[in-house]
Amino acid sequence: MSYITIVCVILCFVVAAGNTPNFVIMLMDDMGWGDLGVFGEPNKETPNLDKMAADGMIFPNFYSANAICSPSRAALLTGRLPIRNGFYTTNNHARNSYTPQNIVGGIPDYEILLPEMLKISGYRSKIIGKWHLGQQPHYHPLKHGFDEWFGAPNCHLGPYDDKKTPNIPVYKNANMAGRYYEDFLIDKKTGESNLTQMYIEEALTFIEKQAASHQPFFLYWAVDATHDPLYASKQFLGTSHRGLYGDAVRELDYGVGQILKKLKDLDIANNTLAVFSSDNGAATYAKTAGGSNGPFLCGKQTTYEGGSREPTIVKWPGKVAPGQVSHQLGSLMDLFTTLIKLAGLSLPSDRIYDGIDLTSTLFQNTIVKRPIFYYRGNELMAVRLGDYKAHLWTWTNSLEEYHKGVDFCPGEFIVNVTTHEQVNHTSMPLLIHLGRDPGEKYIIRPHKPEYVQQMPALMAVVAKHKAALKPGEPQLNWCDQSVMNWSPPGCEKLNKCIDPPPSKLYKCVWPH
Amino acid sequence: MSYITIVCVILCFVVAAGNTPNFVIMLMDDMGWGDLGVFGEPNKETPNLDKMAADGMIFPNFYSANAICSPSRAALLTGRLPIRNGFYTTNNHARNSYTPQNIVGGIPDYEILLPEMLKISGYRSKIIGKWHLGQQPHYHPLKHGFDEWFGAPNCHLGPYDDKKTPNIPVYKNANMAGRYYEDFLIDKKTGESNLTQMYIEEALTFIEKQAASHQPFFLYWAVDATHDPLYASKQFLGTSHRGLYGDAVRELDYGVGQILKKLKDLDIANNTLAVFSSDNGAATYAKTAGGSNGPFLCGKQTTYEGGSREPTIVKWPGKVAPGQVSHQLGSLMDLFTTLIKLAGLSLPSDRIYDGIDLTSTLFQNTIVKRPIFYYRGNELMAVRLGDYKAHLWTWTNSLEEYHKGVDFCPGEFIVNVTTHEQVNHTSMPLLIHLGRDPGEKYIIRPHKPEYVQQMPALMAVVAKHKAALKPGEPQLNWCDQSVMNWSPPGCEKLNKCIDPPPSKLYKCVWPH
Repeated sequence: MSYITIVCVILCFVVAAGNTPNFVIMLMDDMGWGDLGVFGEPNKETPNLDKMAADGMIFPNFYSANAICSPSRAALLTGRLPIRNGFYTTNNHARNSYTPQNIVGGIPDYEILLPEMLKISGYRSKIIGKWHLGQQPHYHPLKHGFDEWFGAPNCHLGPYDDKKTPNIPVYKNANMAGRYYEDFLIDKKTGESNLTQMYIEEALTFIEKQAASHQPFFLYWAVDATHDPLYASKQFLGTSHRGLYGDAVRELDYGVGQILKKLKDLDIANNTLAVFSSDNGAATYAKTAGGSNGPFLCGKQTTYEGGSREPTIVKWPGKVAPGQVSHQLGSLMDLFTTLIKLAGLSLPSDRIYDGIDLTSTLFQNTIVKRPIFYYRGNELMAVRLGDYKAHLWTWTNSLEEYHKGVDFCPGEFIVNVTTHEQVNHTSMPLLIHLGRDPGEKYIIRPHKPEYVQQMPALMAVVAKHKAALKPGEPQLNWCDQSVMNWSPPGCEKLNKCIDPPPSKLYKCVWPH
Repeated sequence: MSYITIVCVILCFVVAAGNTPNFVIMLMDDMGWGDLGVFGEPNKETPNLDKMAADGMIFPNFYSANAICSPSRAALLTGRLPIRNGFYTTNNHARNSYTPQNIVGGIPDYEILLPEMLKISGYRSKIIGKWHLGQQPHYHPLKHGFDEWFGAPNCHLGPYDDKKTPNIPVYKNANMAGRYYEDFLIDKKTGESNLTQMYIEEALTFIEKQAASHQPFFLYWAVDATHDPLYASKQFLGTSHRGLYGDAVRELDYGVGQILKKLKDLDIANNTLAVFSSDNGAATYAKTAGGSNGPFLCGKQTTYEGGSREPTIVKWPGKVAPGQVSHQLGSLMDLFTTLIKLAGLSLPSDRIYDGIDLTSTLFQNTIVKRPIFYYRGNELMAVRLGDYKAHLWTWTNSLEEYHKGVDFCPGEFIVNVTTHEQVNHTSMPLLIHLGRDPGEKYIIRPHKPEYVQQMPALMAVVAKHKAALKPGEPQLNWCDQSVMNWSPPGCEKLNKCIDPPPSKLYKCVWPH
């Protein structure tokens, strides 16, 4: 009898008696903290998100569990740090890794995903957009608790030649519905694509269907228009002051507005917790084709604030009072813990969870002291507690990559902080006060009383964390061209199957 | 017969028949664009300003006329660029200058100040806080149209020894009421001072008195707690996540709330235009003792966006619809033009005005295409038109000053942009698209079609401006220790007179 079944025997009756709320998580891709009007984007082009903030609660101190996509998303859906759920690499020290289509690994069966848990309480779950937890079929969403899927296992990169590399498939549930650049078009020259409109339509249809059925639902809207290559539909192209990136933001903002409106129109808004956030910081290396991290240092791929501070808004009319700011240090992993609680469930007790229950924050705006851990691959790079952050390691990227033009901190240079070597500060961590210094520019020197006073608590948190840590089996070490999306399930019907090359395992190369 | 008298003969009858609105301009000192929650300050500690924004109109593209205090304030009160009203120096090329207490110059009699104009329409005007348009008595506010004054002619620097340098006087109307650090205390060790509370109280009393008298009023609330040395009253000390700077911001935010509440309580809010802004960008060189310019480059003293982009909010219940964003390029000088219009007056026709009338922006949210000129001393350094900005000259500060530790762009370095030499780009200006690139990091190269397409319009604006420009007599060239605040009017009664040293004129030294 599986864990899930045991839990269900105990809880399903209790839960069925309650009025379980619906959940909508709208997770952006590479959107930065500073990309929303309400978070200070100077062109102020996100009226729907700004309204969502006015109607709900914003979290200016909310983090993703990682500064790169796959580990961040795996952490959200498992409630556990990538170092525990296996979404990291040991090929090199402190390297970011993710799930390109030649990755062998993916989300381990041992991990219990949010929709698997919610199923115990009778939820129907749908993912729309990017999965990124493994492209091999046994890793797919429908094998890990989701009931429906419209979207792709990997990023919408391409177009590929379908010879050396196959174009990425788009799935409708368990089977492919076509491929990017073939059946789902993205014009890389103009940036035109209808994908966001399709994702909006899929969301509205799912919500309508669930509202009619009275079955509680979890919608995971994992759209990707702000990830390279950027796209927007014709009606949004050229409408932003910010170029194509802003067009994409505007269309996603419109989508958020449509989803919230649908909840209201169907009279289920009062019974639906809606969350907006992003998977990691803006890709500053993409220059004007990337987003903004506002006043924060650097961006995606780094453990500075720009890497993982996320623009997070929660709306739940009648439950979460409007116009609030929460100073709680939050994490995307908290959504797992919180939604489990709201669904009347308890966390499995056989493993460590890194998220905290945010219900009292949402309902009473309370604050719990908790640490935020900043990992890069297999290394704990930094820790935050209260307003203080200690950098145990610093690294932007290698000089070799930097000289190739890859710059994670364009225009920014802080001595001893934005280092191009991996610098070990564990014996004397760099201390920053993020309240006075959100840009991480002014290191508090070790001889200062403030350093002496604050560092023990930070170091105690690190010691406790490390003592209890049993790293999961790393999933992102091995690559193989044969595991790419050559012949996805359902390819036969569409005549889209391609013969894979012979299998040849090799260690993936992670330059950052 | 003076110009003012002629205008009055024509207009006073017309105006008396109308219902002229009251004006409150709340001008902060060295507060940055990024210091307000509504403009993205991550600690979100300005609930009253955020509410003012929700109830009114925000201007994310609003500028001061200069990146330093005195010229910015002179421009606001005259509606004209410092190069016209004399608030600049020709001692060196492109140098910032202001009015320390040894300055000989001040606001010329030839300039017509906003309260002088408003007097024609029967207004009573009060300045509370920092004047900064000349400390010699003939330059004082009551000689230039204000009816009341509580505050100081210079910055609240000190304490001085009253031997080599006198402490700055605080005036109650035409006479001094005491001196900083003697009668008006600022504890530089703790940062404690009741000055902001006094400035709030003065404002509330003036508003009450005017409301009772039914005489229209102009209140210029020029508070200075966010200018070095920072201060806050006991009840606000230690309350901010941002340190003393944040404590000062919180107290000013409270003050804004008190003023707006008073207008509402007295039932005159619907007949009062309230404006919040700042005199220049945050003093980034002050490090964690300075404010934030959000995503913008550098700060005070520079012609990058951080130098003069101001956090501007307008509230006028019943006239300006709530919750609006205006994308109009605005300037503090526009307040002159706009308030003149709203008071039923016309601009004097014998001089050039640089402000535009914002009434249709306020009432219909329309946009007029207009340039923004970025001056540093006697040099036009940059120009903005639409989303484009052209740098004609670039300069942060000299390497000599930089090596002394004065850094206007801490942690920021953009090749060819943040130059430590004065670089002349007039033959091939640096083009920036501020919509895509608010941080001024990505220069659009001259061979790009966008450069070829956009530059002519920017250069045409510059040519037109320069052709019509007749610089005013520079007021900020000469210094003399004998003109300092030794024996301010009223000093006898307080036994606060000090004998001045012999007069000795010398050219002021402006290092930046």
